[in-house]
Amino acid sequence: MSSKEWSELRETFAACAPKTIAATTAAVMAINPEIDLGGADRFYSLTKEPTDVTYEEVTAAGLPAIWANPLDCDTERVLVYFHGGGFVSGSKDSYRKVAAHLAKAAGVRALIPDYRLAPMNPFPAQLEDARSLYDWLLAQGYQPSKIAFAGDSAGGNIATGAALALNRDGAALPGAVVVFSPWYDMEANGPTFDSNAAVDVAISRQLVHNFAPMFLGGQSPADPLANPLYADPAGLPPLLLTCGGDETLRDSVERFAALAEQTGVEVALHVADGLPHVYQLLAGRMPEADASIAEAGKWLREKLGD
Amino acid sequence: MSSKEWSELRETFAACAPKTIAATTAAVMAINPEIDLGGADRFYSLTKEPTDVTYEEVTAAGLPAIWANPLDCDTERVLVYFHGGGFVSGSKDSYRKVAAHLAKAAGVRALIPDYRLAPMNPFPAQLEDARSLYDWLLAQGYQPSKIAFAGDSAGGNIATGAALALNRDGAALPGAVVVFSPWYDMEANGPTFDSNAAVDVAISRQLVHNFAPMFLGGQSPADPLANPLYADPAGLPPLLLTCGGDETLRDSVERFAALAEQTGVEVALHVADGLPHVYQLLAGRMPEADASIAEAGKWLREKLGD
Repeated sequence: MSSKEWSELRETFAACAPKTIAATTAAVMAINPEIDLGGADRFYSLTKEPTDVTYEEVTAAGLPAIWANPLDCDTERVLVYFHGGGFVSGSKDSYRKVAAHLAKAAGVRALIPDYRLAPMNPFPAQLEDARSLYDWLLAQGYQPSKIAFAGDSAGGNIATGAALALNRDGAALPGAVVVFSPWYDMEANGPTFDSNAAVDVAISRQLVHNFAPMFLGGQSPADPLANPLYADPAGLPPLLLTCGGDETLRDSVERFAALAEQTGVEVALHVADGLPHVYQLLAGRMPEADASIAEAGKWLREKLGD
Repeated sequence: MSSKEWSELRETFAACAPKTIAATTAAVMAINPEIDLGGADRFYSLTKEPTDVTYEEVTAAGLPAIWANPLDCDTERVLVYFHGGGFVSGSKDSYRKVAAHLAKAAGVRALIPDYRLAPMNPFPAQLEDARSLYDWLLAQGYQPSKIAFAGDSAGGNIATGAALALNRDGAALPGAVVVFSPWYDMEANGPTFDSNAAVDVAISRQLVHNFAPMFLGGQSPADPLANPLYADPAGLPPLLLTCGGDETLRDSVERFAALAEQTGVEVALHVADGLPHVYQLLAGRMPEADASIAEAGKWLREKLGD
């Protein structure tokens, strides 16, 4: 690399962050300077390094991504992990460890993409990326039934919406969907937004009102692919939904679980009393986080078949 | 974990960062709110994930640390990697990848500690931690000659100062010291602070004047263990020093290399024309970073013996 080429990288170096994050930060700060976009990228500190996992950065369907490869995992099965961060922050790097914990528990590889972030790339950019990644995996030779979609918070929305979009299009579906504290409710109208307001340090009604417009980009908060509470889940693959009992989002997760079950979908719901939003980020440090990931891993082993 | 125990973790969760970093941030911001302490922790994005390395978090000599274990590495040889970040920021997490690249190139394990940060813990806390880690490794059965000290920027200072302190005390010395762009000069009085001011986006004279007092905590900028330019290097193990040609710190690195060589120390110095401070952080993305790490790895294989 020449000095000239380096000088072109200097801006990135100075920003100390991927260009997408830096540019998004600038855009979001212009909308609401109170939002700390460093937040989700610092979540990586919460999760303990899983042992016995190696990593590889790749470009998958044109997107930067990390493969997490548990030693001796089944390389024919894979989960795509969509990170959280309110659609506007977070990265493959900051959620690498939690995805790797889940992959290790499931005995599969995990692909952790940097999907495009809002507000520069509003809905449905994230679902387009999810579809591209799914098609990329199929092109690599993975069978649909051996692929799981997973994610937390905003990423749980994407994992679910991606399956709903494939279902709507009549495409082959992934074998399972696992979500931790998915953010479905774009209107913040559920009762736990009031009843858990004092104990949920992560998500408030005001936060939803700040973030949802950046994701929606002027589109309807009741679009069934942006807000699964308005979707018809009939035909979806088995779903595992978890959330903390102390979450403002809790009732919306329970509502979607009930809706899916009523339409004949196989649903497992686990609400962890007294725990917060995406408590699985404390994997390796909090027994309940480890237990949830172990449970999800066992469930994935069953659903992705032999 | 009970709800009560979780509630005690909530502060950490809300801070989205290790307590040490959060507390240090608060302390530093009180001194100079212009300093972006998120910076060094975001450096992790610069480095590509090395392949074929697994990780394990441990407590080493009472400090949080990560082991980076390249697959099939020699487990009898080890490097201790002291991260950069101006003594006041950075972490085992944000420098995990660059340390792992070096460990892989050297075919050894790397121990990456969260040494105590300034200004809450000024000099010589960092050298005390380095000594504790060294003694901990000896207690684990590692031979001194099979241990290398490594680090970048402020961590390069610690790696060098720790070897100087062992030498002063007549203790068994590590087998080698490798430093990338070490920050030795606490006075910013070298000529490259002027001649490279326009091209070095990382370190300016003003930055040194802001950061050095936090590290020194009222102690002399000419203390030989805080500023190796005032030290007697005679008796040190082989040193590999690298820096970028565009650095403000360049002449101080060259000065220390000359000083060490004059006193009979085996010194390898590599100044990379046109490149910036700790360009090795671009490992996996910039050929010169990979070449430097490959060179350091080869050198370490020789110096740590068979």
